[in-house]
Amino acid sequence: MKSFLNVKDLGDLKEALSEAVEIKADRYKYDTLGKNKTLLMVFFNNSLRTRLSTQKAAMNLGMNTIVLDVNAGAWKLETERGVIMDGDKSEHLLEAIPVMGSFCDVIGIRSFAGLTDRDYDYAETVYHQFEQYSGKPVFAMETATVHPLQAFADLFTISEFWKKETRRPKVVLTWAPHPKALPQAVPNSFAQWMLEADRQQIPLAGAGNDCGIDFVVTHPEGYELDALFTAGATIEYDQRKAFEGADFIYAKNWSCPGVTGGKENYGKILSKDMSWTVDAEHMSWTNNARFMHCLPVRRGMIVTDDVIEAPTSIVIPEAANREISATVVLKRILQGL
Amino acid sequence: MKSFLNVKDLGDLKEALSEAVEIKADRYKYDTLGKNKTLLMVFFNNSLRTRLSTQKAAMNLGMNTIVLDVNAGAWKLETERGVIMDGDKSEHLLEAIPVMGSFCDVIGIRSFAGLTDRDYDYAETVYHQFEQYSGKPVFAMETATVHPLQAFADLFTISEFWKKETRRPKVVLTWAPHPKALPQAVPNSFAQWMLEADRQQIPLAGAGNDCGIDFVVTHPEGYELDALFTAGATIEYDQRKAFEGADFIYAKNWSCPGVTGGKENYGKILSKDMSWTVDAEHMSWTNNARFMHCLPVRRGMIVTDDVIEAPTSIVIPEAANREISATVVLKRILQGL
Amino acid sequence: MKSFLNVKDLGDLKEALSEAVEIKADRYKYDTLGKNKTLLMVFFNNSLRTRLSTQKAAMNLGMNTIVLDVNAGAWKLETERGVIMDGDKSEHLLEAIPVMGSFCDVIGIRSFAGLTDRDYDYAETVYHQFEQYSGKPVFAMETATVHPLQAFADLFTISEFWKKETRRPKVVLTWAPHPKALPQAVPNSFAQWMLEADRQQIPLAGAGNDCGIDFVVTHPEGYELDALFTAGATIEYDQRKAFEGADFIYAKNWSCPGVTGGKENYGKILSKDMSWTVDAEHMSWTNNARFMHCLPVRRGMIVTDDVIEAPTSIVIPEAANREISATVVLKRILQGL
Repeated sequence: MKSFLNVKDLGDLKEALSEAVEIKADRYKYDTLGKNKTLLMVFFNNSLRTRLSTQKAAMNLGMNTIVLDVNAGAWKLETERGVIMDGDKSEHLLEAIPVMGSFCDVIGIRSFAGLTDRDYDYAETVYHQFEQYSGKPVFAMETATVHPLQAFADLFTISEFWKKETRRPKVVLTWAPHPKALPQAVPNSFAQWMLEADRQQIPLAGAGNDCGIDFVVTHPEGYELDALFTAGATIEYDQRKAFEGADFIYAKNWSCPGVTGGKENYGKILSKDMSWTVDAEHMSWTNNARFMHCLPVRRGMIVTDDVIEAPTSIVIPEAANREISATVVLKRILQGL
Repeated sequence: MKSFLNVKDLGDLKEALSEAVEIKADRYKYDTLGKNKTLLMVFFNNSLRTRLSTQKAAMNLGMNTIVLDVNAGAWKLETERGVIMDGDKSEHLLEAIPVMGSFCDVIGIRSFAGLTDRDYDYAETVYHQFEQYSGKPVFAMETATVHPLQAFADLFTISEFWKKETRRPKVVLTWAPHPKALPQAVPNSFAQWMLEADRQQIPLAGAGNDCGIDFVVTHPEGYELDALFTAGATIEYDQRKAFEGADFIYAKNWSCPGVTGGKENYGKILSKDMSWTVDAEHMSWTNNARFMHCLPVRRGMIVTDDVIEAPTSIVIPEAANREISATVVLKRILQGL
Repeated sequence: MKSFLNVKDLGDLKEALSEAVEIKADRYKYDTLGKNKTLLMVFFNNSLRTRLSTQKAAMNLGMNTIVLDVNAGAWKLETERGVIMDGDKSEHLLEAIPVMGSFCDVIGIRSFAGLTDRDYDYAETVYHQFEQYSGKPVFAMETATVHPLQAFADLFTISEFWKKETRRPKVVLTWAPHPKALPQAVPNSFAQWMLEADRQQIPLAGAGNDCGIDFVVTHPEGYELDALFTAGATIEYDQRKAFEGADFIYAKNWSCPGVTGGKENYGKILSKDMSWTVDAEHMSWTNNARFMHCLPVRRGMIVTDDVIEAPTSIVIPEAANREISATVVLKRILQGL
């Protein structure tokens, strides 16, 4: 594997989930695979869970890691040609990225959406620059539009909690309010991965039973995600209808994706409607659903204390599975070197 | 060992000191004990000596380490329930800490006293949150009220320099002036460890000789340390009387502990009396005492150049022993996993 | 090797280059040499290439690494005796440096020139403090006046690109304009290493052929480098004459070294003359020369896009060789422990 950005980069999801099971049973099984291999983790934005879980994954595989915290403000790369670089950009990407690639074997990139220029963000400019110029395999540690390590961990978590069932699960991605404007990376990837798992008819309910996922997205009007990620999904604007019969509720805030209503709304907060906060009443509409969230989560805004602390909340094992998804992805990259 | 905060967590000090001797003779003796074990070091405050020595200790044991520098201002955890988190706290401790615990095997915590709310500081709130919610063994890398890795190194250093003597040593903890308000963590722990070593009648002077420590604390009035740490100690307000016959002088500044004179003085500077600065005349009152300090030390305030540079100053070997105390503590934690 | 600051610290350059060839062929050849050895990297200034390449070099040798980012503003060491330290300097170098030395086996130092006090900078005060008080081998990761890991990589790069030739190369160090005042460390070391390679008559053109280097420095008047580094070099103020027949063009900006025209010009920008920018016309004066620069480089100021992107530009392999020079230097230090 030379790049990990979208679900298709992983190919057969059944095989990928089976590798996740193997790693979780013995996370040090491949602890010599990464000998004398170095992971460079480049953070253009802060990170807690992704940094810890990815660093741990590299250690599981016996890799060395180098962490590079790039202050987004202080280190600006020139990307154009023909420019007289007499301003605040001290380096051109055509030099900076190949050099970084020289000193490592694999590169992880964290680079959030700026939420002002939709075209720039959705072009995944920074990620593709590293992909094109580093000369090394790269993977996304949350980029402008996707967070595939999270989505892989989410799918694996659903598979773990559903494996004793006989029918396919109903999984609902619900928007919820938040005080700040957030990127669409997590909901984009979650939708992409759920839909692909359905397309591949992954047997989450155990072999011989119903396959795939019944996937529904619910949000206020104007929050439509890009069809790049949601084509084929059921969109239900009535949150209560969406929740009915749900087996998994995946809550997340996101800012306006700028799909309907014009690009000028991109990155804006269109609603802080607290009736969307997932509380006990919301959960009572479901089929005793498990509650999921990628964390960090703002209680009282996204979800109430009682729901996130209930036995049906699986946010902690979901986060812990980030180590597993990262280990599988790094293992595949190492095997492809 | 599941937690390391107070001297009692180490149990038998004679055994602990004997382990320190063993590690110092060969600090890589247990260099496979930590294979595939990860230490997460969480710094809510800056650190030089503690970070370097603890990281080195982990490496001595073959552990992986992940350092997390938490900007105290930027990452505030909500600790209450029932709160609508629409302000500057983006995460609740009930999610943040278990997730950190998911990605490591041992957690070290540095979290200084705020010096404004005595009850909050002395409750050791942050440390106990990690202890309770991380699911992993935790240890203090200087917390609000204690610095046990320092005190263990101090006790070990005294034992090294006194082992050829036949009588028990007189050890004096003396306050000294400083331009800034400092926590009580170091003097609290030093007192606690000296008193426990005396209670356990540790044979610092070598087997078959006098055991334990003659321990005296001296400071201006108002600087009384909490009895939690000093119960049983001799308090002597006359610095000269305290120094007479001393074998070890341990200098340190601390701000008002808020024990006498009311909690409203907690964390305040009550005195900058330069007559308490340890100079050659002060040392002439002692029994050719060794000079100790945890470092960093402000010369001219705490101690004069000639005293800290004299052959009787043991501040550098004392600091070097931080690696030894940290290695013993991590070794015990690993053995208990 | 106990210290690595100047070219003479490496001794026989032919032997050093031969070790570089060996390491480049198998950079993990000595991957157990650094077992249970710890490299402490102390950064008083930011670093990208040096940090990554040196950390990678340490990993190649199986060493542990600890990175210490010292905020130059926040951590000021007192260096004088007899001072009452009641200001912003919280620690004396006589304590701080020996303690750092206690927790590691080798220390790398990055400490740039302040460009205000020439005598202080050229005395290499910080480096020599570590050399004198740490008790451990130290090496320069770019100090006030030199950058020997860069110069070693530069010499090795020239040797790689010239080994099939039969005559000695003409190497030209050329000043070029830059918007900010930069130190002289890179040109100082480059000149020092080129001149020493010539003095030792290193056979860059392959054994049995012409040996050494024809080395020329060109810059506007007032930019004369210190004779400490350039004694014996040809200085040519006419850039075109300097470039004629050149086989390697090494471009770099530097601020006034304060050699001619008085110390009061030290660190100042005397010229931003854009006619010195290396463009295609400049390169047409040469013998189809290779273009070199230590990076980061400002395009349009130092060099034009077409020159740095041409097949004759070797800036990326030059940067990649930083890993090789650092590995050789660390290997020698480890072998001398």
